Amino acid sequence: MKAIAGPLGVNRRSLLSAPALLSMPALLRVTSALAQDPNSQLPSWNDGPAKQAIIDFVGATTERASAKFVPPEERIATFDQDGTLWVEHPMYTQVLYCLERVPAVVAQKPELKEREPFKTVLSGNREEMAKLSLHDLEEILVATLTGMPVQVFEGEAKKWIETAKHPRWKRLYTELVYQPMLEVLQYLRANGYRTYIVTGGGQDFVRVYSQQVYGIPPEQVVGTAAGTKYGYDKDGKPFLTKEPKLLLNDNDAGKPEGIHLEIGRRPRAAFGNSTGDRQMLEYTGAGDGARLMMLVLHDDAQREYEYGPARGLPDTKVGTFTQELYAQAMKDCWTVISMKNDWKRLFAFE
Amino acid sequence: MKAIAGPLGVNRRSLLSAPALLSMPALLRVTSALAQDPNSQLPSWNDGPAKQAIIDFVGATTERASAKFVPPEERIATFDQDGTLWVEHPMYTQVLYCLERVPAVVAQKPELKEREPFKTVLSGNREEMAKLSLHDLEEILVATLTGMPVQVFEGEAKKWIETAKHPRWKRLYTELVYQPMLEVLQYLRANGYRTYIVTGGGQDFVRVYSQQVYGIPPEQVVGTAAGTKYGYDKDGKPFLTKEPKLLLNDNDAGKPEGIHLEIGRRPRAAFGNSTGDRQMLEYTGAGDGARLMMLVLHDDAQREYEYGPARGLPDTKVGTFTQELYAQAMKDCWTVISMKNDWKRLFAFE
Repeated sequence: MKAIAGPLGVNRRSLLSAPALLSMPALLRVTSALAQDPNSQLPSWNDGPAKQAIIDFVGATTERASAKFVPPEERIATFDQDGTLWVEHPMYTQVLYCLERVPAVVAQKPELKEREPFKTVLSGNREEMAKLSLHDLEEILVATLTGMPVQVFEGEAKKWIETAKHPRWKRLYTELVYQPMLEVLQYLRANGYRTYIVTGGGQDFVRVYSQQVYGIPPEQVVGTAAGTKYGYDKDGKPFLTKEPKLLLNDNDAGKPEGIHLEIGRRPRAAFGNSTGDRQMLEYTGAGDGARLMMLVLHDDAQREYEYGPARGLPDTKVGTFTQELYAQAMKDCWTVISMKNDWKRLFAFE
Repeated sequence: MKAIAGPLGVNRRSLLSAPALLSMPALLRVTSALAQDPNSQLPSWNDGPAKQAIIDFVGATTERASAKFVPPEERIATFDQDGTLWVEHPMYTQVLYCLERVPAVVAQKPELKEREPFKTVLSGNREEMAKLSLHDLEEILVATLTGMPVQVFEGEAKKWIETAKHPRWKRLYTELVYQPMLEVLQYLRANGYRTYIVTGGGQDFVRVYSQQVYGIPPEQVVGTAAGTKYGYDKDGKPFLTKEPKLLLNDNDAGKPEGIHLEIGRRPRAAFGNSTGDRQMLEYTGAGDGARLMMLVLHDDAQREYEYGPARGLPDTKVGTFTQELYAQAMKDCWTVISMKNDWKRLFAFE
């Protein structure tokens, strides 16, 4: 008989053959201890201050005897997505989606074919596309993200995310999630935390894959959101249409505002990687009791990318990790996660 | 020794004295069967089509072998508040809160004292107050619900809700919740449903007491919502201010729109009592598989109030149960709950 290893790597036959050593209650204690051991739950993290900050926070807020104990219903942890949970270079994944949707939109509205910025996008000239202004980009987002029924959008986004690949790794974007962060999500949930994504990206877009990729259900995704409009199809069946009306710009101050709108509680822990996450971390830190604020620093040119203060250069672009943000992190005792030093492994496929 | 009846009405002594009849596993089966028995969980409901519709729906969607089985993550039930979960007459509770806040607002802004509609409210003349226009009312809502830090508002609302009493029953508004609906909330939750409030009332207002009164946490309250604005106090501590900028009018079509914004899933069950809930019920019913749509009909002049089609009169006021809504309920097979016939008991204090 071949021994079958259980989910915890425990040899099934050895358990069965040693009932005196491992009675059921003893086994329960062993598996429970394994489940509680943070080291077994954060295997892609190197030992160091970042890993320790996570473990200390979870310990302090979940041990009943702790002065910093947090009741389960208040255990909320929020995560930025782009650059915090998955790769954001060379471009936000959702912006790529929008650019790649342009031909389909133009096919339905041929009058856009000769109009800018659509003409440039259709040309496929990457150099010219890189020169598009923020206003051009907004026009593309509106054309590709609004004007259709919610269900139609969800179907299109799902199809795309299941096939589109990153130019560098030639892998699905959903494979380019950071394994150490998946472990943090899981570790927090195992300790009674509800994990939320709070993203500058589109709320409807991220909700399409959040459960499958992060184990986060749609109702725990807060993101940039446009309004919808209720109406009826020709058979009288109601449906919602995505409208070009911005309800929530979930960046910068919009993050705490979005958290208040859709969650209504101040997070206990918040994770980000850029100036767009600053206010979310400030807001989290302004609450009393134990709080955990962390920023992912992209300082790993070899395994991923190196940008922001890691390069020693001032970086004033929106959505990046600036010198100023780094200085605030030091002043406010936020923990900076060095991809290079703190992460043993970046991706699950490695 | 006096026998102590347990929470399930089981006589404690009889259990202890008959160990052979009720061993622990057998006891577990018994209590489990009791927990599953809908009749024990809906004690304030009379037998009838409304109670049966609830029991049938829960059975069909939670039994694994059922063709209409719904996976736990999709079990979402939404409830209107005013008139569905608690008394809405003679006035929405939150409107009363706003009217009663006027003196405090005027004390801080004396220039409002001689200005309408504040002058009329300060006069306390109920007849004149009843004549205030919708525009007047909006001005009062803006003055009393916005312009202050979120936490200040929460403190004020909490203090009010803990003391203000209904003119008819002379009891706290939070005591005027319908016991049969509390049982439905609990019964659904016991069967894996997450219960949400989807209210035309203020989201921030209802969140102040939703956990304590309904067992519904703030993140499961969707309501009419104003924007907030992130800022810093003089010590540099960040806080959110309630702004006079409407983000979501959570009435009528705003209900499915708000559900999409803050939940991102179509409900499986929806409960309302007025035209303001029509679109929420339509949207719920437009999904496939088993769905439950219910409307509370206020036809009990003696124990509560009688209004809407129960009086046999057309009623075109916003937020009421019109003849037209009644006809739609019949056509679309929504279940109408008759307070008079379906509810054995209205309030917990009875």
